[in-house]
Amino acid sequence: MTDVFARPGLLSPGTGEPTAQRIADSARAWDGGITDLADFRSWFAGYGERSYAHVERIPLEDLDGWRRDPETGNIRHHTGRFFTVEGLDVRMSRGPVARWSQPIINQPEIGVLGLLVREFGGTLHCLMQAKVEPGNRNGLQLSPTVQATRSNYTRVHGGRPVPYLRYFDHSAASSPRRVLADVRQSEQGSAFHRKRNRNMVVEVLEDVEPLDGFVWLTLGQVHRLLAADDIVNMDARTVLSCLPFAHRDPQEMPDAEGDRFRSALLRSCGRAAGSLHTMEEILSWITEARTRTDVRARRVPLDGLPGWRTAGGRISHETGRFFDVIGVRVEAGGREVGRWTQPMIESHGTGVVAFLVREIGDVLHALVNVRVEAGYMDVAELAPTVQCTPPNYDVLPAEARPRFLDEVLAAGPDRIRYETILSEEGGRFYHARNRYLIVETDTAATFDHPDFRWMAVHQLVDLLRHSHYVNIQARSLVACLHSLSARSNSRCSGI
Amino acid sequence: MTDVFARPGLLSPGTGEPTAQRIADSARAWDGGITDLADFRSWFAGYGERSYAHVERIPLEDLDGWRRDPETGNIRHHTGRFFTVEGLDVRMSRGPVARWSQPIINQPEIGVLGLLVREFGGTLHCLMQAKVEPGNRNGLQLSPTVQATRSNYTRVHGGRPVPYLRYFDHSAASSPRRVLADVRQSEQGSAFHRKRNRNMVVEVLEDVEPLDGFVWLTLGQVHRLLAADDIVNMDARTVLSCLPFAHRDPQEMPDAEGDRFRSALLRSCGRAAGSLHTMEEILSWITEARTRTDVRARRVPLDGLPGWRTAGGRISHETGRFFDVIGVRVEAGGREVGRWTQPMIESHGTGVVAFLVREIGDVLHALVNVRVEAGYMDVAELAPTVQCTPPNYDVLPAEARPRFLDEVLAAGPDRIRYETILSEEGGRFYHARNRYLIVETDTAATFDHPDFRWMAVHQLVDLLRHSHYVNIQARSLVACLHSLSARSNSRCSGI
Repeated sequence: MTDVFARPGLLSPGTGEPTAQRIADSARAWDGGITDLADFRSWFAGYGERSYAHVERIPLEDLDGWRRDPETGNIRHHTGRFFTVEGLDVRMSRGPVARWSQPIINQPEIGVLGLLVREFGGTLHCLMQAKVEPGNRNGLQLSPTVQATRSNYTRVHGGRPVPYLRYFDHSAASSPRRVLADVRQSEQGSAFHRKRNRNMVVEVLEDVEPLDGFVWLTLGQVHRLLAADDIVNMDARTVLSCLPFAHRDPQEMPDAEGDRFRSALLRSCGRAAGSLHTMEEILSWITEARTRTDVRARRVPLDGLPGWRTAGGRISHETGRFFDVIGVRVEAGGREVGRWTQPMIESHGTGVVAFLVREIGDVLHALVNVRVEAGYMDVAELAPTVQCTPPNYDVLPAEARPRFLDEVLAAGPDRIRYETILSEEGGRFYHARNRYLIVETDTAATFDHPDFRWMAVHQLVDLLRHSHYVNIQARSLVACLHSLSARSNSRCSGI
Repeated sequence: MTDVFARPGLLSPGTGEPTAQRIADSARAWDGGITDLADFRSWFAGYGERSYAHVERIPLEDLDGWRRDPETGNIRHHTGRFFTVEGLDVRMSRGPVARWSQPIINQPEIGVLGLLVREFGGTLHCLMQAKVEPGNRNGLQLSPTVQATRSNYTRVHGGRPVPYLRYFDHSAASSPRRVLADVRQSEQGSAFHRKRNRNMVVEVLEDVEPLDGFVWLTLGQVHRLLAADDIVNMDARTVLSCLPFAHRDPQEMPDAEGDRFRSALLRSCGRAAGSLHTMEEILSWITEARTRTDVRARRVPLDGLPGWRTAGGRISHETGRFFDVIGVRVEAGGREVGRWTQPMIESHGTGVVAFLVREIGDVLHALVNVRVEAGYMDVAELAPTVQCTPPNYDVLPAEARPRFLDEVLAAGPDRIRYETILSEEGGRFYHARNRYLIVETDTAATFDHPDFRWMAVHQLVDLLRHSHYVNIQARSLVACLHSLSARSNSRCSGI
């Protein structure tokens, strides 16, 4: 028997540089590729005319196929699948609010968010999907190639098979392909009990036909679309953030010359770039946060949840803050046809999600907050500098007002490098939108605050290879940061 | 106000090379340093004469301060602290046994395993502790500087304060120090329900006096002691494995010349070394294993646990296999004085814990098994090629017989690079010992097995910076692998 391990060239290089470079090159492919943005625009508009979801709010008691458990009041589907709405009783050993109750979505199955990529003309392209979801204010948004709950792909709802799913199924896969990212990441810990999705990026090495509703775009094109309100959906943003990005030294990139911000950003994405803290210090800081805070989150009956009441066909907090659990009736047309009802979460007010960034040395750093949320798998995750819905703080103690919120809200246009309204997941959240911001600052005040650390972008990218370090909002902002790497004018109006 | 971020030299380098090199240098400090091994030997022997633990088995019903809960039969301390012995009902969607019940130790608090290091004469030294534990067959072993459950350091047992603990407490720390590792790692998932300890290595930059029972050793000296049976305890091994090791290219190390095995090992510890699989592939493989297996582990009453019975003052499996829950009475003398009783786990038979290793290209790779255990936080962890107690398999179906066990047991001395009997944690396990082996192979048969992958050592080291990837047995073997890096003769008889 010949020794298969003796074959030359068997070893992969110790670093992921070749892939990282191809990703960075695709991010610099600003337009062109196999679809140009003008064509995309008319295709997307045309597709939007053929696809729609008529969504109507209905009282929870009118949901069809969903029932409230007679003992607990929990809302569940008669098949036992999809998700349930339950109560959560939370105690925290640190933070401004030591104990509270809230409704929570329990969806223990791990779904797949999969992005298929393929080289055309030497440049990586992403197979993006135009997808209507009931919670999207504007109906159609761009999603990754596959966005499937386990209920979806086991086809509980009796729908059609999920296109392209086989590329993300290791047991079924036979086509030549390369996995660029494959990691379970959390979603909103304020609304979900330990929900995670598997974020996957798979490069196919053979022809793949785009079906109706799918389009090949370069990363640079997707990044441009990220500058427009409500186009790139949450699932697309989280998958994009998990790509193993790394940029060349800006000195090798003549188009960055003279652009201080972008040069600092590119340096920050270089794997060998310096950083204010070593990775050991960052990891120790996270370990400390996860060790020092005790979170006791106990699932309890939705009926009789302190502070919450069912009235007018919805479940609301007695102050009218936070969010409501509502019912909706959906009638979808176009590629995905269907009629159904479901519960959804309706947030009150538009949130603010922001990174303060600054140069340290000549490397851009983001001010990262280690944040405890009741629904996280592992106590705390890395979050944006600011992540809140400001009106909620009217009913909380003054010391709960988020640090740095006022600095972000007061920032002038000369400091705002990115500002776009983006939607949260349209399958569970009804019209949930946040204003995403990247704001340059010269503050040094946070040098030693135990809940904040300055991190270089490559440090966030490194942690994004692993589960449950970077929260969903920070992942969106990482995708937004990457979108600034290929622009000479970092603030632009998108498509 | 001056901008603190403008100060020159503020950034840390993007890689941890300086620290990794100092660690590797200490591993090559084979003897000498501030303690030589001859002195250590007589000190350790002398200390052993002054320290002892008389341990006597007693019936569970004679435990003092521990009681069986009248409703569940669970064994707990009257203070509610320390740990409880409960039942666990386990269902697994894959594997030879789909459902079983077993007693399990529930110890949700996160303890600290801390190693203090300090440079003397330019070489890092570890402050090791000679520590008697009731479960150690030979009484005294070498432990890390600090080995403290939360009950220990909050002093529930009314004992003396834990020496050196303040160096590992971020909130108390004031001395100049540098954190080299700080990560929560799991322990035996077959005996503990989600137990984790915080593994910390802290370098102090000021004088630290070794108290009675403590000694400064180089890493190379600790590594030599790892070649002797039952000297370096489990807690020391796990902390050592979390050190950010990286070796220079063997070409720069003349003492490795002509030693094929050691050169391949040193290459394997180099961060830029090649590997059969990219890190993305390894991470995807782990994600797949954690996604495809459903583990439902439910805590249930110890009373009436199917297959287990209380008789003769202990809890045993009806086949006599696996382990017993026993009671012990301890009388300790020497530095740590005390009398107490406690439940312990007594395993049946000596286990086998082994890595098959081989060169791929010219880089040493270990054959790693992704293993599901009921008590893990996150479904599966990376385990040795073989990890089992052979007699247990007599009562399980034939297909449960561990792969590669026969190859390991049949290996001739020319293939065995490491072989030592090491003890498991002596605070919970009574005389639990495993034969740890590193065996060279030329098998290629496992090229594509879904539960096994060949990994370079630097890939294991990289994952060890993060929680819950590498299990306790594999971590011991990683420490053993490192111990071979500084030897011209890889098999030696230790002290």
